[in-house]
Amino acid sequence: MAELYGGLDLGGTKIYTIVATAGGEVRGEFELPSEADRGLEHTLGHMVESMEEAAKRAGTSVAELAAIAVAAPGPIDFKAGVITAAPNLGWEKVPLRSLLKRAWHHEVLLENDANAAALGEYTYGAGRAFCDMVYVTVSTGIGGGFVFDGRIYRGASGAAGEVGHITVEPNGPRCFCGNRGCLEIMASGTALGRLGTEAVAAGHSEMLREICDDPADVKARDVAIAAARGDPVANEILDEAARYLGIGLGSLINLVNPEAIVVGGGASKIGDRLLDPAIAEAKRRSFPQSFGDCAIRFAELGERVGALGAIAVATGGRTPIASS
Amino acid sequence: MAELYGGLDLGGTKIYTIVATAGGEVRGEFELPSEADRGLEHTLGHMVESMEEAAKRAGTSVAELAAIAVAAPGPIDFKAGVITAAPNLGWEKVPLRSLLKRAWHHEVLLENDANAAALGEYTYGAGRAFCDMVYVTVSTGIGGGFVFDGRIYRGASGAAGEVGHITVEPNGPRCFCGNRGCLEIMASGTALGRLGTEAVAAGHSEMLREICDDPADVKARDVAIAAARGDPVANEILDEAARYLGIGLGSLINLVNPEAIVVGGGASKIGDRLLDPAIAEAKRRSFPQSFGDCAIRFAELGERVGALGAIAVATGGRTPIASS
Repeated sequence: MAELYGGLDLGGTKIYTIVATAGGEVRGEFELPSEADRGLEHTLGHMVESMEEAAKRAGTSVAELAAIAVAAPGPIDFKAGVITAAPNLGWEKVPLRSLLKRAWHHEVLLENDANAAALGEYTYGAGRAFCDMVYVTVSTGIGGGFVFDGRIYRGASGAAGEVGHITVEPNGPRCFCGNRGCLEIMASGTALGRLGTEAVAAGHSEMLREICDDPADVKARDVAIAAARGDPVANEILDEAARYLGIGLGSLINLVNPEAIVVGGGASKIGDRLLDPAIAEAKRRSFPQSFGDCAIRFAELGERVGALGAIAVATGGRTPIASS
Repeated sequence: MAELYGGLDLGGTKIYTIVATAGGEVRGEFELPSEADRGLEHTLGHMVESMEEAAKRAGTSVAELAAIAVAAPGPIDFKAGVITAAPNLGWEKVPLRSLLKRAWHHEVLLENDANAAALGEYTYGAGRAFCDMVYVTVSTGIGGGFVFDGRIYRGASGAAGEVGHITVEPNGPRCFCGNRGCLEIMASGTALGRLGTEAVAAGHSEMLREICDDPADVKARDVAIAAARGDPVANEILDEAARYLGIGLGSLINLVNPEAIVVGGGASKIGDRLLDPAIAEAKRRSFPQSFGDCAIRFAELGERVGALGAIAVATGGRTPIASS
């Protein structure tokens, strides 16, 4: 029987666990809520249980897994195996690696969730034909990760790949990070919602007001629906977000000159309506050669990207394909 | 006797050649003008001669050099050993590697000049204590190079590290590359000169008009001199350029999270007056952890950076120091 690996994706709302072969063939999977409001012990218990259940469903046990990796939010102290801070879980300085090791009696690898997702797409998804790849996730926030020559590039603090926090509008609105005009504040799902809420408050879009559940909290998907139905204001909002996304992608292409950019997250649901104008803007702003040499693809792993990313971390990913 | 290496820096105005040990100890050096206006054969002849002369001064010959590398401008087709385009030399598709190999009867390594400079500072200069480093050169233009874990990161087209062509002002002036508001057009020496020329034309700075040789072509150094003498307009120009440089550095720190940024080029001459406010701006715009983990240093190799960079390419650089 093929060796099996365990990959766990710890999210703000759910814990998604997969047991799979090194080739990414899923043999067992299991999901439990994170329920972080019920405390660290509770969430930890769900993590432990979910891996045990996924292993059982794969016809094996945690003890028999060849390797286990966990994709976790927030900055990580990799040497110590500690989650430095994960605001969406209310965690600070949690020694996750040793806690899980004690529970599972098994070595555990920790990786930042965006980096794990990047290695997941690189190994099993839209990036599998490339040597150097940038993963960009456009969702509530905008994040990302670098895989260069088959390895995650973490940078000095493990924070490399923060695509969402490059400045695209120097005097733009204040981002949660303290900077002004970050890509995230200009083009994330949250940005779409904010612009939609402003448009409704100003009485600019009757359609958007009707579509949304709460006019004081318009969602990105409301904007996408209104735009698809032809609402000009919603379409302007999408165009503006796409323009900033394109500015960010253009800078990324000129600076990093990647072979591929893989775009995941909720934005994939809005799809070509957001990505096509963003790519057109990136093309106008980047070197023709660098743009031409960069494949831009939607992510392929969907909801499983974090857990399969953890599997990729556990297996060591794949051997890079020689680049030209 | 220690093995000796040859490094040649092909610039738009001069050819600078060094013969040195693997440790970067210079044993012979020689300089000749490029004189590209006299044609390819002429420039090539000067390249050939300069290496022969530098070797002679080092008490050896080209044939006895352990390895030779050439740092050249413009995009390079590394597989073919061809300079794709070097506008400042008037070159297009020049098979430089085979031309030099034939003349020297010796294998030749080619590298992009910014990448070579990056590896030079990494190996012998301000970056020698770090594992991952970004080199940024602020001069007539703004360029750069990445060294990750001891190796030059070239990207898909050999164009990675183009720090000067990230967008820092989306509606800014048109850059020569076609984009608007590139860091290069906002903060390079050329940008300082352009802003100085505009200030003189508008009659805003008497001091600047007196300092410059040609009021229709104010130079960056004129602006620096006027600023040092207390001219408020020149100081505003420096502040604005520094702000954009800081926006660029901040994005670089958040995105690449390097252990070190080494700043070279003519801007080093303006020095702290430009870099200090740029660093302050970068600090305001980047993650505290990523900023705190990034050393920002002036380059140390001066005029020799390209030739010593080529030596580093010839020797393979240095073994990376384990990062935390």
